[in-house]
Amino acid sequence: MRMYDIIAKKRDGGELTEDEIRFFIRGCVGGEIPDYQTSALLMAVCLRGMTPRETADLTLCMARSGETVDLSSVPGVKVDKHSTGGVGDKTTLVACPVAASLGVRVAKMSGRGLGYTGGTVDKLESIPGLRTSLSREEFLGVVRRVGICLAGASGSLAPADKKLYALRDVTATVESLPLIASSVMSKKLAAGADCILLDVKTGSGAFMKTEEDSIRLARAMVSIGERAGRRTVALVTDMSRPLGRAVGNALEVREACETLRGRGPADLTALCVELAAGMLALAGRGGPEECRKAASAQIANGAAFAKFREMAAAQGGDVAVLDGRAPFPRAKLIREVCAPADGFLFAMDTARCGEASVLLGAGRAKKEDSVDPAAGFVLLRTVGDRVRRGDPVAVFHTSCEERFREAEALFLSALSIRAQAPELPPLVHARVTRDGVVRPA
Amino acid sequence: MRMYDIIAKKRDGGELTEDEIRFFIRGCVGGEIPDYQTSALLMAVCLRGMTPRETADLTLCMARSGETVDLSSVPGVKVDKHSTGGVGDKTTLVACPVAASLGVRVAKMSGRGLGYTGGTVDKLESIPGLRTSLSREEFLGVVRRVGICLAGASGSLAPADKKLYALRDVTATVESLPLIASSVMSKKLAAGADCILLDVKTGSGAFMKTEEDSIRLARAMVSIGERAGRRTVALVTDMSRPLGRAVGNALEVREACETLRGRGPADLTALCVELAAGMLALAGRGGPEECRKAASAQIANGAAFAKFREMAAAQGGDVAVLDGRAPFPRAKLIREVCAPADGFLFAMDTARCGEASVLLGAGRAKKEDSVDPAAGFVLLRTVGDRVRRGDPVAVFHTSCEERFREAEALFLSALSIRAQAPELPPLVHARVTRDGVVRPA
Repeated sequence: MRMYDIIAKKRDGGELTEDEIRFFIRGCVGGEIPDYQTSALLMAVCLRGMTPRETADLTLCMARSGETVDLSSVPGVKVDKHSTGGVGDKTTLVACPVAASLGVRVAKMSGRGLGYTGGTVDKLESIPGLRTSLSREEFLGVVRRVGICLAGASGSLAPADKKLYALRDVTATVESLPLIASSVMSKKLAAGADCILLDVKTGSGAFMKTEEDSIRLARAMVSIGERAGRRTVALVTDMSRPLGRAVGNALEVREACETLRGRGPADLTALCVELAAGMLALAGRGGPEECRKAASAQIANGAAFAKFREMAAAQGGDVAVLDGRAPFPRAKLIREVCAPADGFLFAMDTARCGEASVLLGAGRAKKEDSVDPAAGFVLLRTVGDRVRRGDPVAVFHTSCEERFREAEALFLSALSIRAQAPELPPLVHARVTRDGVVRPA
Repeated sequence: MRMYDIIAKKRDGGELTEDEIRFFIRGCVGGEIPDYQTSALLMAVCLRGMTPRETADLTLCMARSGETVDLSSVPGVKVDKHSTGGVGDKTTLVACPVAASLGVRVAKMSGRGLGYTGGTVDKLESIPGLRTSLSREEFLGVVRRVGICLAGASGSLAPADKKLYALRDVTATVESLPLIASSVMSKKLAAGADCILLDVKTGSGAFMKTEEDSIRLARAMVSIGERAGRRTVALVTDMSRPLGRAVGNALEVREACETLRGRGPADLTALCVELAAGMLALAGRGGPEECRKAASAQIANGAAFAKFREMAAAQGGDVAVLDGRAPFPRAKLIREVCAPADGFLFAMDTARCGEASVLLGAGRAKKEDSVDPAAGFVLLRTVGDRVRRGDPVAVFHTSCEERFREAEALFLSALSIRAQAPELPPLVHARVTRDGVVRPA
């Protein structure tokens, strides 16, 4: 078998066999295939696409390119959850403990944030003492004891994805549906869960800006998961505005705790219930309405927050902070940003809001940057709310005057204030399973 | 400017600016742009194409990426000639001396053969003593004194083409019209002639197998030449059977000498007159019919052969061999191959005939191989001729029994013998100028 022929086949729009894909991934990780051949194939895939079968084979080969997590020592159904990323998305911190409080096992590996997309590991690390860098044994131990563990991804998971991603990043081959879907799913498959719930964001703050593209990505990922023998469902959810009110690591953990205690913003609470119900349904805990009710009950009766608290403690976190008995990291400068005009907050460019939070110190412009756990903002008004010129619309948390001013200018440019009220988009745009796409009425 | 953005633009089907193309070629030759980015762009070009303007800009940047030949010290109009390559194509050895004998200056750099495609340098080197590796001063000196010089291409001409070609060869990005056209034309532009006559072969022994593809390539190359300010014309000529009767270096030079003396095969003679007339017309020596007559006359009156002889002598060649007073290199084993059936020689797979000549020792399977100047074959029958089972159809020249047998089997498999006579294709399929495509009646 020759890499040359594999490239030529894809260039001409052919369908690669499983053997050809395996040969490529092995050679790519093993270093026998030079980067210039890999990038030529990646560009051919970008422009010619891949069939669902090819995409699934590629994903499985990538998943098997390194270490995989063996969850067989954990009893019960293990459910993973993944979000394609957005602004203010702290749903993992809420939905996973809700599901875990009902006996669903959650052994989840998360990443750090990059650009305006937050990462669960960064958020968790704003809890003093909490460790996300766990040995495989520690990780499995917490899952067995507590039923849930949220840790950082192991560096040896799906090395083919790391290699390909680094190359895609410099050869303009990121924007390819099969490559995006296989990148995400290879890590999920390697992480070993039985079922996978995907939260595919859509809108101005999401990787996929249109509902159509988001549904297409959701279908591709569900197809991969099902072909790999994992029950997989995706919710396509709204990211046309920040989720909840808080953006920034400690601020989001605080909001997650509020939500787990039944005092969170309506949009965030509703979405977390949907996601937790989705995880429960995947684990065979009943129909959608039944699962939703069960999830809501766990928030109301305190069990969900108790589970989160238990997990944080098991990972070394200071629970006094979660209880409100000790402070979260606090920013030096906390100041309001005011509405520049009267009217309705008609729309927000959510990506730009996210970039403003990066300027405040809450995110990374480059991989090597560190984050300020206390930085970020809390919205006092959100899309659909009426504002008056001079009314505070957000509270910014940052380290200095300069960051505040830069972020304020960017944030204000992201707001669109109009005389009429906007029509609000649904929280869940679509539900994608192996049987197809269902749009909620 | 970033290479990433250039790749992304071409990936999305955009048209690259001259600045972007220059940035790419400079960075590629200078080593600042890594091969994996170059190969991603090459694949994007393969699949998205390039406009005539982009192709011309790419070619000019490649032509200027290294040394260029300054022919200003040579008086008169300098005309170059290039063939896309075929089997038995010795037209350069005939058409160029014909044109030169009428005062057209020919300063031509040629290559060596690879695979079944012959190279003028290999053919010339079968003339004892003849040198093709000349210094720039020697080369220009011969052109000034004799009016024609056929030398090997300088290694420093169009280094961007060498770099890109090496990468295309291993990334399945050879088959791209703009990349093929720019590769050929960059070397022609760097070689400095005022006018360029292209011979684009078409058929089973050509790089382009169909007339449609050959015309497309011819149009692309003519467009590049004209945009670069060189008068450029292409003839699309037949390569559905070997040209003339001889295939192999010394055998082809002998046939070229016969042709220059008016005793060559009809097809070869007719095509050489067409090509020489094309060169004369480009140099402003009159209309097509006038130029054809002038070219034929130079063959009939001995002036064309005298010019070739003069050039060979100036390059150190033993003219006694050309005159027939001393022998060409002679093969150890010379043996006939016979027709396997009765009928008409209906068609020949010309590429396969060429591969048989490589097996005999006349060509190179790999760049590093050497050629046997004496090896090859001479057809006794060609397409359209009637044959009888057991009649000799070709004489093979090679070094040993084993090569003979291997080549014989391949050669016979290339012949198609049928009861009916074939319809013979035209010698010239089309003539392509900046004004368009003309098919001879």
